Amino acid sequence: MFLKKIKSEGIAHLSYILGDGRDAVVIDPRRDGEIYAKIAAQQGMRITRIFETHRNEDYVIGSKDLARRTGAAVYHGKALDFSYGEGVSEGDTFAVGDLGLKILETPGHTFESISIVVTDKNYGKDAVAVFTGDALFIGDVGRTDFFPDQARAVAGALYDSIFDKLLPLGDQTIIYPAHGAGSVCGDSMASREFSTIGYERMHNPALQKTDREAFIDFKVREQHYMPPYFKKMEHYNQFGPPPLHTLPQPEPMSAKDVEKAQTDGAVLMDLRSPEAYAGAFIPGSLAMPLEMIPAYAGYLLDYSTDIILIPETQEQIPEAVAHLIRTGYDRVSGYLKGGMHSWEVEGLPYDRIGAVHAAAIGQRMQHKEDLTLLDVRKISEYKQSRLAGATHIFLGELPHRIDELDPRKPVITFCGSGQRAIIAASILKQHGFTRVEDSLGSMQACKNVGCELQEG
Amino acid sequence: MFLKKIKSEGIAHLSYILGDGRDAVVIDPRRDGEIYAKIAAQQGMRITRIFETHRNEDYVIGSKDLARRTGAAVYHGKALDFSYGEGVSEGDTFAVGDLGLKILETPGHTFESISIVVTDKNYGKDAVAVFTGDALFIGDVGRTDFFPDQARAVAGALYDSIFDKLLPLGDQTIIYPAHGAGSVCGDSMASREFSTIGYERMHNPALQKTDREAFIDFKVREQHYMPPYFKKMEHYNQFGPPPLHTLPQPEPMSAKDVEKAQTDGAVLMDLRSPEAYAGAFIPGSLAMPLEMIPAYAGYLLDYSTDIILIPETQEQIPEAVAHLIRTGYDRVSGYLKGGMHSWEVEGLPYDRIGAVHAAAIGQRMQHKEDLTLLDVRKISEYKQSRLAGATHIFLGELPHRIDELDPRKPVITFCGSGQRAIIAASILKQHGFTRVEDSLGSMQACKNVGCELQEG
Amino acid sequence: MFLKKIKSEGIAHLSYILGDGRDAVVIDPRRDGEIYAKIAAQQGMRITRIFETHRNEDYVIGSKDLARRTGAAVYHGKALDFSYGEGVSEGDTFAVGDLGLKILETPGHTFESISIVVTDKNYGKDAVAVFTGDALFIGDVGRTDFFPDQARAVAGALYDSIFDKLLPLGDQTIIYPAHGAGSVCGDSMASREFSTIGYERMHNPALQKTDREAFIDFKVREQHYMPPYFKKMEHYNQFGPPPLHTLPQPEPMSAKDVEKAQTDGAVLMDLRSPEAYAGAFIPGSLAMPLEMIPAYAGYLLDYSTDIILIPETQEQIPEAVAHLIRTGYDRVSGYLKGGMHSWEVEGLPYDRIGAVHAAAIGQRMQHKEDLTLLDVRKISEYKQSRLAGATHIFLGELPHRIDELDPRKPVITFCGSGQRAIIAASILKQHGFTRVEDSLGSMQACKNVGCELQEG
Amino acid sequence: MFLKKIKSEGIAHLSYILGDGRDAVVIDPRRDGEIYAKIAAQQGMRITRIFETHRNEDYVIGSKDLARRTGAAVYHGKALDFSYGEGVSEGDTFAVGDLGLKILETPGHTFESISIVVTDKNYGKDAVAVFTGDALFIGDVGRTDFFPDQARAVAGALYDSIFDKLLPLGDQTIIYPAHGAGSVCGDSMASREFSTIGYERMHNPALQKTDREAFIDFKVREQHYMPPYFKKMEHYNQFGPPPLHTLPQPEPMSAKDVEKAQTDGAVLMDLRSPEAYAGAFIPGSLAMPLEMIPAYAGYLLDYSTDIILIPETQEQIPEAVAHLIRTGYDRVSGYLKGGMHSWEVEGLPYDRIGAVHAAAIGQRMQHKEDLTLLDVRKISEYKQSRLAGATHIFLGELPHRIDELDPRKPVITFCGSGQRAIIAASILKQHGFTRVEDSLGSMQACKNVGCELQEG
Repeated sequence: MFLKKIKSEGIAHLSYILGDGRDAVVIDPRRDGEIYAKIAAQQGMRITRIFETHRNEDYVIGSKDLARRTGAAVYHGKALDFSYGEGVSEGDTFAVGDLGLKILETPGHTFESISIVVTDKNYGKDAVAVFTGDALFIGDVGRTDFFPDQARAVAGALYDSIFDKLLPLGDQTIIYPAHGAGSVCGDSMASREFSTIGYERMHNPALQKTDREAFIDFKVREQHYMPPYFKKMEHYNQFGPPPLHTLPQPEPMSAKDVEKAQTDGAVLMDLRSPEAYAGAFIPGSLAMPLEMIPAYAGYLLDYSTDIILIPETQEQIPEAVAHLIRTGYDRVSGYLKGGMHSWEVEGLPYDRIGAVHAAAIGQRMQHKEDLTLLDVRKISEYKQSRLAGATHIFLGELPHRIDELDPRKPVITFCGSGQRAIIAASILKQHGFTRVEDSLGSMQACKNVGCELQEG
Repeated sequence: MFLKKIKSEGIAHLSYILGDGRDAVVIDPRRDGEIYAKIAAQQGMRITRIFETHRNEDYVIGSKDLARRTGAAVYHGKALDFSYGEGVSEGDTFAVGDLGLKILETPGHTFESISIVVTDKNYGKDAVAVFTGDALFIGDVGRTDFFPDQARAVAGALYDSIFDKLLPLGDQTIIYPAHGAGSVCGDSMASREFSTIGYERMHNPALQKTDREAFIDFKVREQHYMPPYFKKMEHYNQFGPPPLHTLPQPEPMSAKDVEKAQTDGAVLMDLRSPEAYAGAFIPGSLAMPLEMIPAYAGYLLDYSTDIILIPETQEQIPEAVAHLIRTGYDRVSGYLKGGMHSWEVEGLPYDRIGAVHAAAIGQRMQHKEDLTLLDVRKISEYKQSRLAGATHIFLGELPHRIDELDPRKPVITFCGSGQRAIIAASILKQHGFTRVEDSLGSMQACKNVGCELQEG
Repeated sequence: MFLKKIKSEGIAHLSYILGDGRDAVVIDPRRDGEIYAKIAAQQGMRITRIFETHRNEDYVIGSKDLARRTGAAVYHGKALDFSYGEGVSEGDTFAVGDLGLKILETPGHTFESISIVVTDKNYGKDAVAVFTGDALFIGDVGRTDFFPDQARAVAGALYDSIFDKLLPLGDQTIIYPAHGAGSVCGDSMASREFSTIGYERMHNPALQKTDREAFIDFKVREQHYMPPYFKKMEHYNQFGPPPLHTLPQPEPMSAKDVEKAQTDGAVLMDLRSPEAYAGAFIPGSLAMPLEMIPAYAGYLLDYSTDIILIPETQEQIPEAVAHLIRTGYDRVSGYLKGGMHSWEVEGLPYDRIGAVHAAAIGQRMQHKEDLTLLDVRKISEYKQSRLAGATHIFLGELPHRIDELDPRKPVITFCGSGQRAIIAASILKQHGFTRVEDSLGSMQACKNVGCELQEG
Repeated sequence: MFLKKIKSEGIAHLSYILGDGRDAVVIDPRRDGEIYAKIAAQQGMRITRIFETHRNEDYVIGSKDLARRTGAAVYHGKALDFSYGEGVSEGDTFAVGDLGLKILETPGHTFESISIVVTDKNYGKDAVAVFTGDALFIGDVGRTDFFPDQARAVAGALYDSIFDKLLPLGDQTIIYPAHGAGSVCGDSMASREFSTIGYERMHNPALQKTDREAFIDFKVREQHYMPPYFKKMEHYNQFGPPPLHTLPQPEPMSAKDVEKAQTDGAVLMDLRSPEAYAGAFIPGSLAMPLEMIPAYAGYLLDYSTDIILIPETQEQIPEAVAHLIRTGYDRVSGYLKGGMHSWEVEGLPYDRIGAVHAAAIGQRMQHKEDLTLLDVRKISEYKQSRLAGATHIFLGELPHRIDELDPRKPVITFCGSGQRAIIAASILKQHGFTRVEDSLGSMQACKNVGCELQEG
């Protein structure tokens, strides 16, 4: 018997492959699904069933591609009308060798959410583990803000799913959720990736709200952002995404070709670090440090434009492609071969962005310099602690709210540690702001150098 | 934070590397420890501490080599006088980033056995996991037969360790034991590799003996074999094994060179399958199908003889070397390049072993053929179910008890599924038995074809 | 600039990927073409052109799949009417960065055969290397027996291609042929894989026939076998093979399922060593040691039957699949999981084959034992040296000529070193021969033990 | 038989492993020699001999470590008194399976230089290939400037080695030199990595000087730099370098720890791109883009100081370590975990460097701005083409000649494409220059934007 967790970094998506004997099942496969087939082949198993714990909204599920490849059946909760696969109901059971899988309907995050309880028939009927999807995470519970007009009802449904179905499985039950720390599906997940029903019952902050109304109040007060790409994901995951026979292979392009493609409308997405982008960048390009793609590409890219990558290294290309196709961006047509260096030696124009040390921001603010300090963090981060005088616009909303800023004034972009600030700076540059600086280190540096902060 | 289980197949040894921030700890490292250093480097961590849950007797622990390489400190229970490392006591604590590690003294399997409780300081003081060493396995508990003159006392100590220390950690605690299914350290482990204190409390057969005396009775009635190499391991693991700077690299040898080495006293260890060995083997060689090394090499090899491998494929060489050095056999000097084929084309003599189908054994026994049906399984397997008329000698004891058999009579070797039978057959051949057949499929085949069996 | 040779073991097929700047070209890609795309991606290049040196008859060319995947153009000699790609003519040139490629028409092996000369524009117009396809090998030249009614004409064409086109390129020219030692496309290739026009001019035995008529005489006297699958390959390679989106993934099957599939008509192809097959095999199965597939599967398998593999190890599966699809056998539907062991423990019937030591054959022949000594080597090997009294039937023809043998007599199968003998033995068993032995070591062992041989 | 070229990027060092049967030989192994042992093991061969074509001066040879590990014998030319290995003489022969190796003494680059001729005994005594060490490269010949007081004599010796020994091997002979394009051992090597004696005879510029005196004149007029680390290499390679049991494993360090180590005297070596360094760097650090290490570390680092790496990615660490130990820098004690980002969030001070576009340099020079345009290329590059008004100091000499520059004036650093310019800029910053800009793109950009250049 074997169980393997497959983590997709960035979206912090957790999928699982579980096998015994000659059969294996996959829970919530990602779109680049080669890995499941490979593991199954190594184990001498065939993937016969694929379960989706719910219709995901933050990534494209890979069930259809994997099913096409393996002949496996796809299952999901029956409360949503999927255009593929089969619906399952509370109490349905499946055997995988000596393991039993039993369906629990656990609505709340979405209506059709299910959890899958694992038993070991050699030892009895108690749960030994449970795949909880987005109902219960380690240190958090699922979002319930997807149906705003039924806010209290869905939060209540989640309460019932957790308190009446999951907790009763018993403290001994290991939990395997669909996301880990870093996911947009919950703000408070633990970095620790192992836990049990019992440990969560005792320590998960949300589960301390044992009163149903208190839990509901707590949930409806939460604030989450809803990236625009979620709509696309929901559509894909209900009706099936475009098939992905092979991963996109972006073409190596010369600097001249990249320049021409940009003129023709392609987005240049610069994967390099904030320091490298600040040091020299292609005018008009979008800064998107590689590890920021999963969280912010969905806000800033549309689905109808070719994407051309400006990489630091060749190795970043397949990683960027994986991040992008997982959120449905398949038009990754090329990359600048040789990176920024090949642009520079061609003699093409580049731009730069100034840097402001955390310690200097306070001084400049004190001296009443007429500038905009633009904080692009989430509103929750902003509310918790901020520099006095800052203007807050969440990064994901910046392109739509850019008119709120004065392009003639200097702007210092600011975030948690400097990654989002460079993205914001590049957007300002795209919109004609000329006096843009970004705060390397941003809030973390501020705290370490003892800036004066406003809190609460 | 990350936690990774490293499984050494064959001995079913489980070691762990656990890290947070810049520090990582390793629990019970194996001797070929490159893997821990590599994982730590990938994670950008340094291994600062190594814990041994107890002085192991079934494999060589790799702590000293790993400590030499990384500068890490080594810790073990203080109830044994180790010649290296530091002793730890009940209640000692260590921090690894946000994780806390707390020592529990859990004697029983050995006197100095410890367990290591994991807490997460972001969530409170309850145990989230525990490394149980050989105290508590999934589906079984540790052996208590190493101190036969104190049999009841050590079984009682194990009871106390489990019932008074481990179970009180709470049902929610995930367990990470030092062995999985297939280990010589317990007969009844589950093939499932994830469990919790709660699940074991409910379903581990040994833990159903909640009465102390009943538990002790149960443990002292258990029958385990004690391979002779255990003594070597105990000595190595108390006083430190020979350092292993690099893994042995057996030399490719020609058939003629192998023949000469055999004459000079080397052991030829044939790694191929029972069918291949039966089809043609080098006279005097020892059959040892690759996956049998961990369980039986320690009975059949001594530490002062050069070992030459007869492989099926080149890929088997490093795997055999790993199995051998883990049990302290470092003198793997060469292998027959090109395998048996190169022996045959050289025109050197080979021998063969007959095969008896399960269905034929019964017929031959019925016809009162004057033969020895030699069952080499463990006594516990033999007692449970056997063919009438069988002679039982456990494989590990065969070389020493071979005089009990009549070399003039035909012998059919017999075991669970045919792997041990071929080893036994090769030993008989070494000792001049000429009419040797082995039962491919053995007991499993017997059951499937409906042989008449004696049980209980 | 880079040049990489991709060798497909077994068929000893050599393909090449050559790149400079952003463009790469592939010469004679194999069907499992992932490797070319991967190398190009690592180098930051795109494959823009694919050249076929000729319509191959011994393997399926991968041009169409690779072109579909990369968008590359396909080129081949214009003397054959291909249903895809573009024809090229003597003197056509292509640039790949600083390299120049120039087409030479070099008919002989086939009419449309081309060679591709490489120049380096930084250094002048002399050839630095040439891709010779099947015109000129290291130590041999291409076969000219594919158009038997124009035997002398094609041999003459090859003479002209070599002496009038390739040799004039100059001694300094490195040669990159389409096959290396072990190929069915030539018997006498060197095991050394690097050479030049000059070295071949001096030492290639065929090139010592500098007289045109002598060369032609030499070529038309050659004897080559024409495996039946060549026809399929020729058709595939002229009109395009079935597309291969992903490699076949054979399913793991239980012994019972394999038994049933065999009843339903599937071929069981046993990949294990001769010793293992002789030790125990499934009645009705075909012995086909893994490394024999490229040379003999094409004689013994048809294209309309499912193939089920009986492997020694899991690792053999993808290797067997690669060998099979390269020769167009795509119906590899399953494999016996756990190998022969799982068949035995199921209690299913198995058979065995006797082994005869080389030294014993002579004795038995001398004692006038009434047996058939069946030599299945190529006729050229047989003619060169053989045991007295042997019956010769080439392995590839055995199924069609089996009536020439007496099934009631004992048969000893015999070949070069024992690999083909086991295949022959399994075929005899399939046809009801009951007294079959095979000669492990065969002719090589005979020579080493000093058997009396007939030569010439 | 197999032959594999192992290329060490950066120093463009080519080593080779050649094997036949059970024996393999290695030519000029690098210091991180795991790769040779691994290849030999995969091939089922043992490395029995190691040849050094000469006492190298640009990298540490790995013969002693590899010999210790494999038991192989080490051979080199007898004209130098090595403290290990055995001397070989003209005409000495060695067999490797069917291959013959014959020693040619080919002095010139160094006195003890040898070449090794390869023959194939199945085909006769002509050379099929030759390992030429640093005597003959593809497109160039070896440096002859190591013995300045015997300049004409050694150049003459090289002429004799090439014209009297290597060329007579015949045009058909493939050459395998010890360096490829990019090496400091020759300026004019081809990027093409395959050639023959014949092709070089026709096209190697140096070999067109067929007159001995003309060749000598040509060689003594060449200008090469002699990095200070050459002396260390020469000493190591004559008397044996410190043994390297395992590669250095730099420790992950926090920003605070790095700051402290710097205070204690460690060198911070920043591996990031010029853009990233310019965007933000640690004051006092040395810019050293990863791929610049082989060429410039030997000028700018000493052997007695701890080196701490500032990486862009975790993957750069082992690559930097390999580059460093190949030139004898073993004290790579740590790296800044999380890279520059972790320095910034700690709030520690960073500095930046300005960038000047190629097109702007001319304008600023025209406007008579009082600045230093510092060209740090090799003198040969500078002489060939340069911007008017530039000050030339070769990068390798900059630390020793820094007093020639006025620290109060703005400095623009300038090189071939911008990589060396950032190193120079960081050195100026270390020496208190405050107004430093670097020219991204440098000379290549200048050419592409049409700067006015002085040539010749």
